Amino acid sequence: IPNSSLRVSPLLTDLYQFTMAYAYWRAGRHNEPAVFELFFRDNPFGGGFSLFAGLSDCLMFLRNFRFKKEDVEYLRSVLPSDTDPDFFTYLKELDCSAVSVSAVSEGTVVFARVPFLEVSGPLAIVQLLETSLLCLVNYASLVCTNAARFRLAAGPKRRLLEMGLRRAQGPDGGLTASRYTYIGGFDLTSNALAGRLFGIPVTGTMAHSYVTSFSSLEEVWPQTLVPSRGGDPIDLICLVKGWLGRVCQLLGTKPQRVREGELAAFLSYAIAYPQNFLPVIDSYSVSCSGLPCFCAVALALCQLHYQPLGIRLDSGDLCRQSVEVRRVFRECSNHFTVPAFESFIIVCTNSVSEQSLAELNKRDNEIDAVGVGTHLVTCTSHPSLGCVYKLVEVRGCPRMKLSEDPEKSTLPGRKAIYRLLDTEEILQATKWTNAIVRESSYTISQVR
Amino acid sequence: IPNSSLRVSPLLTDLYQFTMAYAYWRAGRHNEPAVFELFFRDNPFGGGFSLFAGLSDCLMFLRNFRFKKEDVEYLRSVLPSDTDPDFFTYLKELDCSAVSVSAVSEGTVVFARVPFLEVSGPLAIVQLLETSLLCLVNYASLVCTNAARFRLAAGPKRRLLEMGLRRAQGPDGGLTASRYTYIGGFDLTSNALAGRLFGIPVTGTMAHSYVTSFSSLEEVWPQTLVPSRGGDPIDLICLVKGWLGRVCQLLGTKPQRVREGELAAFLSYAIAYPQNFLPVIDSYSVSCSGLPCFCAVALALCQLHYQPLGIRLDSGDLCRQSVEVRRVFRECSNHFTVPAFESFIIVCTNSVSEQSLAELNKRDNEIDAVGVGTHLVTCTSHPSLGCVYKLVEVRGCPRMKLSEDPEKSTLPGRKAIYRLLDTEEILQATKWTNAIVRESSYTISQVR
Repeated sequence: IPNSSLRVSPLLTDLYQFTMAYAYWRAGRHNEPAVFELFFRDNPFGGGFSLFAGLSDCLMFLRNFRFKKEDVEYLRSVLPSDTDPDFFTYLKELDCSAVSVSAVSEGTVVFARVPFLEVSGPLAIVQLLETSLLCLVNYASLVCTNAARFRLAAGPKRRLLEMGLRRAQGPDGGLTASRYTYIGGFDLTSNALAGRLFGIPVTGTMAHSYVTSFSSLEEVWPQTLVPSRGGDPIDLICLVKGWLGRVCQLLGTKPQRVREGELAAFLSYAIAYPQNFLPVIDSYSVSCSGLPCFCAVALALCQLHYQPLGIRLDSGDLCRQSVEVRRVFRECSNHFTVPAFESFIIVCTNSVSEQSLAELNKRDNEIDAVGVGTHLVTCTSHPSLGCVYKLVEVRGCPRMKLSEDPEKSTLPGRKAIYRLLDTEEILQATKWTNAIVRESSYTISQVR
Repeated sequence: IPNSSLRVSPLLTDLYQFTMAYAYWRAGRHNEPAVFELFFRDNPFGGGFSLFAGLSDCLMFLRNFRFKKEDVEYLRSVLPSDTDPDFFTYLKELDCSAVSVSAVSEGTVVFARVPFLEVSGPLAIVQLLETSLLCLVNYASLVCTNAARFRLAAGPKRRLLEMGLRRAQGPDGGLTASRYTYIGGFDLTSNALAGRLFGIPVTGTMAHSYVTSFSSLEEVWPQTLVPSRGGDPIDLICLVKGWLGRVCQLLGTKPQRVREGELAAFLSYAIAYPQNFLPVIDSYSVSCSGLPCFCAVALALCQLHYQPLGIRLDSGDLCRQSVEVRRVFRECSNHFTVPAFESFIIVCTNSVSEQSLAELNKRDNEIDAVGVGTHLVTCTSHPSLGCVYKLVEVRGCPRMKLSEDPEKSTLPGRKAIYRLLDTEEILQATKWTNAIVRESSYTISQVR
């Protein structure tokens, strides 16, 4: 995965990191060797695991960690006026060359209270890093974990498309979601910029607005299509009108209930992209208009030796409709002898959650691919991972926090983590690797 | 509010916007005048309103809307291979000079199903904008609304601090949260970069890691402090040790239960920032160590004519502890005749939610300021606003979508929205304006 080219400013941290850094510096303690550990207290989504993600962003952040002149001037303006001016000189020269990071691999399964990222280095610097590292790890790991849970709910075969950009926390919330849901087990994204920056396969054809923008066949232009294997342009409107009559007869639907605008939209798209025909068919009525229109256009395309892809459903009872649509595809295939209709895919979208995805498997359905937005990227049922970054050692001495809340106390000292697997668990882990880890560089590491 | 200087790429949109734009372009329809409306279907948080935010980001996005050469090359590589090459020339020349935006003001109260942003212009361009605009409006409005709800729950007097960066959806999720929670009614942020970019007041002093990094008074250096009004440096350790004995006697606590590391941390911070002393006092035990240490250091600072600020509590029963801490402050004030102890502020943090904030008001408490992170920025109880962007008119003709889900159908045609207020409601609206709208440029507009 290439760098996202989004430079994260070292000022992207809480102000108290600077007041603490100053107090360390003032006491001459800023270069004392210190160790922080990053972990979370509870597994998210009421589950038994999390995936760790965000490591490459953290490393890029550390490599680029330098304050700009205007950052330091800003800090001078907001820190107390009695701050020693030499502290700002110290900040200007800071980098992370003395900081070491030890972590499990990106995409690793991790568990509550087990540290998976350890940062050691000069006390003041590793303190400054706290909020930035948490910000880079927390959401990346959460959404990666959520994606893995959707993958487990969907089973290994169903294709999963991430399409949450419009519901994410702003532009790079959306980019982070696309990037880490892919690592978590999704196949595709709708996010074009994520495709360009991270090499994730992108997909998409049309929205309802495209369909509803058409009202008449007069808007279709050009009206002809050259057959796939060459030859004279064919009048596609005429051809499709002929097929539509036969489809309506076969399905027992009334031609006058077909929306002319929907037919025009499908025709126009098919003429633009005859190899990429996958319309959304529920802009008006699936059974009375969307499905007959699709079948008619698809039959015409097949006649011209093009291969339509399938359809998308975005409302209503997705299982029931997918079964009905598949039945119609098979009926067309048999009746008109077009075997291409057997391989059309049915894509479903409409506020799909992990639970509704799991429900799908319990019902008859013919859904090949599922697009997920809101519930994936906002992690509705558990919208934050709650990673913390705790000091465990200073100058070789273990440190701990006690607390009025016992669960907020920390375990002192650096930890070595390891995982014991028996034969069955190794098989499971291998299965996991195949199921959820997309990149060969991201493997489940048993031992840090 | 100045520009955030984060340029949002026009490629930050769903791929299907490009396939649709191509189909429009291919049919010669790309320049047809079209109108889209942006609205949400349900008020968030089970409430009766939302605030609109993100407008300035949208306008900046539209002003900078130009595809770079590498964007277009990327699109060429992922769109179907039969895409007419002239389409890419068209994309290279696109900008938003022909696009008009009509919207209510930033920070306006808006309601479900009422369009608050209308975008009109050439069909293909206004279609391309869909996902980017939704991404810029959805989270900004949601988190702004959430902040307003926290403000209503907190009442007008309590200071509210946003500190959610570490739990936000990555770097600009965090920036967006800081920016729009300030508009929604928060007073301060912990996010230093948000302070620099948006001019939001920043605050913060210390975390537990600072306290736990100290283990002995030998780490305190320098050990002296010059009195506020000048004079010889005073040995602060000696001075504080004397006060600590008297405080323990007054409070009936055992000096040997005081953590030497905590005392060292407070001393060291007070020497670094004698005018900015607001320690977190629950790293070990509030009553046995944190509070006696604070009182001793604060008494010494007062003796040297400095003004400590107060304390922060981050665990346990915040109401009960705040009452106890206030009682101790009053006792010290009376016993040692230091009236400064009457004006200390008590800051509370610890997974505060809208509900727990509302609960505070029902119980005795002495909390002056509340810091909110996770529940504010992730909008736990309703993590997405669900704004949609729907086509309502093409070439002057109204368009609508029907749907298998009746609530997903749209109202055709452009709308004029207005709000009728009686005298009482105007008073309410004015109160709202004062309560939640921070910038003079953001006013509640009754009529669009």
